[in-house]
Amino acid sequence: MSEPMFYVGLDVGGTTMKAAVVDDQGKPFPSVSLPTDAHLGQEHGLKTMAESIRLAIQTAGLGMDRIAAIGVATPGLMDIKLGLILEPPNLKPWRNVPVAQYVRQAFNKPVAFQNDANAAAFGEFWVGAGRDVSSMVLFTLGTGIGGGIIIGDRVIEGEHSHGGEIGHMRIDLPDRGRLCGCGRRGCLEAYASATAVVARTREAMAAYRGPTRMRELLRDEDGSELSAREVFESAAKGDHLAQEIVDDTAYYLALGATAMIATVDPQLIAYGGGMSEAGDVFLAKIREYVGRFGLSYPASKVQIHYAQLGSDAGFIGAAGCARQLVMSGS
Amino acid sequence: MSEPMFYVGLDVGGTTMKAAVVDDQGKPFPSVSLPTDAHLGQEHGLKTMAESIRLAIQTAGLGMDRIAAIGVATPGLMDIKLGLILEPPNLKPWRNVPVAQYVRQAFNKPVAFQNDANAAAFGEFWVGAGRDVSSMVLFTLGTGIGGGIIIGDRVIEGEHSHGGEIGHMRIDLPDRGRLCGCGRRGCLEAYASATAVVARTREAMAAYRGPTRMRELLRDEDGSELSAREVFESAAKGDHLAQEIVDDTAYYLALGATAMIATVDPQLIAYGGGMSEAGDVFLAKIREYVGRFGLSYPASKVQIHYAQLGSDAGFIGAAGCARQLVMSGS
Repeated sequence: MSEPMFYVGLDVGGTTMKAAVVDDQGKPFPSVSLPTDAHLGQEHGLKTMAESIRLAIQTAGLGMDRIAAIGVATPGLMDIKLGLILEPPNLKPWRNVPVAQYVRQAFNKPVAFQNDANAAAFGEFWVGAGRDVSSMVLFTLGTGIGGGIIIGDRVIEGEHSHGGEIGHMRIDLPDRGRLCGCGRRGCLEAYASATAVVARTREAMAAYRGPTRMRELLRDEDGSELSAREVFESAAKGDHLAQEIVDDTAYYLALGATAMIATVDPQLIAYGGGMSEAGDVFLAKIREYVGRFGLSYPASKVQIHYAQLGSDAGFIGAAGCARQLVMSGS
Repeated sequence: MSEPMFYVGLDVGGTTMKAAVVDDQGKPFPSVSLPTDAHLGQEHGLKTMAESIRLAIQTAGLGMDRIAAIGVATPGLMDIKLGLILEPPNLKPWRNVPVAQYVRQAFNKPVAFQNDANAAAFGEFWVGAGRDVSSMVLFTLGTGIGGGIIIGDRVIEGEHSHGGEIGHMRIDLPDRGRLCGCGRRGCLEAYASATAVVARTREAMAAYRGPTRMRELLRDEDGSELSAREVFESAAKGDHLAQEIVDDTAYYLALGATAMIATVDPQLIAYGGGMSEAGDVFLAKIREYVGRFGLSYPASKVQIHYAQLGSDAGFIGAAGCARQLVMSGS
């Protein structure tokens, strides 16, 4: 086998799944997307996964013999070791779906199975923001906060596939903190996800008597929800209330970062998702709070940056996990 | 080399250092203790380390040729990779002490260097509470809260040697939480270390008008500090105020545990130090709060136990790190 080998990465999301062939240096061929259509049932879901993988290989113009392994990333709840999707809330009504086994049999290739946020972290570690570090934590800010922890080339999967569920680290006491989507209180996600930023903004606007352009934004587009991006844009344009919200968001994210520093002490903490367009000012604020509230020595050393791969991180990371599977000889 | 080989573990503390030879199964020979006498300077300290190691080998009745490697555990601040003690607050006036290099040259053996709390966690993982698991977190409750995280046979050292500083995970916001010895607010250590338990008890007594035997304890031994052990004993004897303090302590420790579950999701969380004598009732309380406040699935699966090696965990773990160094062929 002197010819270079390739890997397929598939990232299954609640709405669409995205797949691409990735080369040994982490460079992807053009990706393909298919609707997940979870409501059509898990048999349909598994077939769509196989179809996405086939299309990705076709798109890359490669023969099946050039594919060394396949990586599949899916949302939790899952059992990573067994290769099962258990009962993910955003893939209803799927339950106990044998993803790894199905894909393995469909293609007769080694299959790596990973949580989608872990895969994104591994993608960033392999060829993105973390390509020059030996350990990193990725926070992905969206509807919720996903995350992944990579140490010495390995994803911290957790004994029960809950490693890196860092949106559910608590930053406030459970009897006092904000209510999280998980039903508990005080989780980081309830403060700093895009959804939480909007919720905090609406609360603040209700109590705020001063002028804020965000009121116009709400009035302009009747019925449509204010977006976290609009809050960040308003802050950049000098809106005081928005600036407070953004500052608080940096503070909350920094508390999550200091918790990671005191537990796994990574070389890099990276932020992905929509908010990563908030620019250097926002990162600088996070760094400032990390310096104030983190353990002095590691807080002064840790690198804090934005993620670099955008929504490609998942399938690139899945392909990277497949590559690691082959490299480690398992 | 058909004869079985042995490892020396040395655990350097603020007051004494303790060393013993440990066999390949983690069973220690009798240990030796020498005063650390940090105030006599670091040259003296390094010589005492070498002397402890020599005495331990002598005590085991073994020739130097039977020792495969030496492990040394010391308190932080340190640089684990470089084998340096930097400026540990309880080893004043030591500074930038080249421990690993010194011991390596003194004995001409491979030397593993590790943080003392990490070493204790590795000891428990190797032959103590964690001997049957593949990942664990140890909380050691004393003057402060030390800790260590072991995942898949490896100590999570951290990029800046601050991995497992889990006493400084925050459980409350930094503008509101209790003041910690580290100068920041809200750290777990400020709530649940033995010192913090006593501090919280004194505060509660000042505000409490009901009867409590802890007042007698304070009166009995004039000038002497109430101990965390006495608080736990009082609770076991039915003292209401003490029971509240103990219950709160379990709650705080559970918050630390749920943070570990959401980050590294270990198979086992173990508690060492004096409070581990508080018995099964205390552990049951911690488990109950973990079930209430942790991510449901992993919280229902994680094992929660006391540590088993007592104050031997440090040197046994240091020897275990030495063994791992040899096994991994580095």
